[in-house]
Amino acid sequence: MIYPDNVRPGEKGVIILDQTLLPLEEKYIELCTAEEMYEAIHSLRVRGAPAIGIFAAYAMAALSRGIEGEGELFRAEYKRLSVYLCSSRPTAVNLSCQLERMERVMEASLRLPRGELLDTLAAEAEQIQREDIEMCRRISEYGLSLLNKGDGLLTHCNAGPIATSVYGTGLGPILLGQERGYEFKAFVDETRPLLQGARLTSWELSRAGVDVTLICDNMASLVMREGKINAVLVGCDRVAMNGDTANKIGTSGAAVLAKHYGIPFYVLGPVTTIDPNCPTGENIVIEQRGGGEIKQLFFEKPSAPENVKCYNPAFDVTPAELITAIITDRGILRAPYTESIKAALAK
Amino acid sequence: MIYPDNVRPGEKGVIILDQTLLPLEEKYIELCTAEEMYEAIHSLRVRGAPAIGIFAAYAMAALSRGIEGEGELFRAEYKRLSVYLCSSRPTAVNLSCQLERMERVMEASLRLPRGELLDTLAAEAEQIQREDIEMCRRISEYGLSLLNKGDGLLTHCNAGPIATSVYGTGLGPILLGQERGYEFKAFVDETRPLLQGARLTSWELSRAGVDVTLICDNMASLVMREGKINAVLVGCDRVAMNGDTANKIGTSGAAVLAKHYGIPFYVLGPVTTIDPNCPTGENIVIEQRGGGEIKQLFFEKPSAPENVKCYNPAFDVTPAELITAIITDRGILRAPYTESIKAALAK
Repeated sequence: MIYPDNVRPGEKGVIILDQTLLPLEEKYIELCTAEEMYEAIHSLRVRGAPAIGIFAAYAMAALSRGIEGEGELFRAEYKRLSVYLCSSRPTAVNLSCQLERMERVMEASLRLPRGELLDTLAAEAEQIQREDIEMCRRISEYGLSLLNKGDGLLTHCNAGPIATSVYGTGLGPILLGQERGYEFKAFVDETRPLLQGARLTSWELSRAGVDVTLICDNMASLVMREGKINAVLVGCDRVAMNGDTANKIGTSGAAVLAKHYGIPFYVLGPVTTIDPNCPTGENIVIEQRGGGEIKQLFFEKPSAPENVKCYNPAFDVTPAELITAIITDRGILRAPYTESIKAALAK
Repeated sequence: MIYPDNVRPGEKGVIILDQTLLPLEEKYIELCTAEEMYEAIHSLRVRGAPAIGIFAAYAMAALSRGIEGEGELFRAEYKRLSVYLCSSRPTAVNLSCQLERMERVMEASLRLPRGELLDTLAAEAEQIQREDIEMCRRISEYGLSLLNKGDGLLTHCNAGPIATSVYGTGLGPILLGQERGYEFKAFVDETRPLLQGARLTSWELSRAGVDVTLICDNMASLVMREGKINAVLVGCDRVAMNGDTANKIGTSGAAVLAKHYGIPFYVLGPVTTIDPNCPTGENIVIEQRGGGEIKQLFFEKPSAPENVKCYNPAFDVTPAELITAIITDRGILRAPYTESIKAALAK
């Protein structure tokens, strides 16, 4: 297996690209103890829900090699470590999902000889990553089928390889197209307040040789009006059963602009992002974050008076009627989404 | 006359609020030499086209007191100083307009006794400021007539008192309403890349006691969707004869959002902002600025890889069909703008 370079197994632990140092430094670090692994997730050295899930699986495979004893003793220590890692970012669904999957494999293999047990866990972690790579590849292929050579493409936030696996989701068609000579012109919203577009997406696309132009979020209207954009591609954090989609704050604004200028607006993500318990976007609670992210973080000195209130929602919901298609690993879903989503989940 | 606190005559020179230190420090400085005055305009210690024009008028009145000789000698030195000040920001129309106005007064008064000549120049500078105050007051009254108590108001960039005179233009109705107990809830776009909303507008509104909330530009869609906004108020840099309006980058995006969410979008500015030589927005050339403003300025460390291209247009054009009304010192103009603008200019 060729490992993606954001997460891979190391000699003793797990090797990751330290995302906190991007875009100024590309540094790989090996995390060997449970404490180091916890800290890596908690402080966003590894980020992106799928990448965190893969990392946690490799982490449990590596930590298992250090667990002494077998049977009940092994299980108890394994569970302690798993619960500990899971607490590093409690709201990341992929983290708990993949830890649960690894634990089921551990339970099923607990009676095997120690060497086989450890090999089974390592193989499962690899399998999780392989499935993620495959998922990204499929989304990228479906997405690319909707684009034309030379297209100008706008993206918001970061849904690229470092958050997932090779290709990524939102950036997948751009990177796959780059390999196939599509010569896209990518425009990247800087994505205030946390600047994921400037820091991560522009780094990932430049590194792959894509023609990339960074803009401020408020410039999207002008570049669309100037005819520079043929399609908008974004990732997603949660998709409701009617197609309403939660993604990074600013996504709904880009969707309104795209509709106004007659530009297709595509949401890309695996079917696992569709939440069967969520009928519409009304059911999605928007995470509110501190105003310091707007006024202070990243800046040399505060950008606004200390006493000024900030409103800092981390996500917004783009209503289904603004979405041209939802591009999943099980195909391209179109309106009416209530039907196409049900069909995709049933596949 | 009660002077606004952004620009006023001093004992020896002109006193200004140093806008480069906002929002962290509110410092007034007196500029006494032509070199200090040039530097103050050039480095944006005084900014906003109307404020620069007023400053230049007071500057010439003050510098005249130091000119030796009379008649031809006085005129030659006056003109040298005026041309020098005018070169501090060549593209600011108000700067050259007000310097020309002062020069006409100087020419007409050159034969008067020295004391009278100097008094006439000082009085003309005061008159320029008085007219600007009156212009802002009228715009604010017209604007306020369109708003209701308790309205949520979104604004972009800075068109407030420190850029003009008391009240300002875009912020005028909010500040006038504040005095009259309207209890508006103001939402301020931070306005990337130069952060005029965060640095200046949120400072001006807070200082006046307005309930102000700072948001990132890309949050406007969500706050509109959440029903928090009843009207959008922005200033303008140039208005074409068909109503197309150039203003700070991001304005056209806010206008598209406002239309989508059914929210009135108001442009505020004096009729002198209407350019009779500009038939439509197509004739307005957009100033392009360096990418360092996006990637580096204000940040502790660069936000994006060094080699990433940036696109940094300073303005955009909002087409007339997205503008609910243009609020001027000669009344509220509505579509068809080709007619209402002609009528306003003919008044």
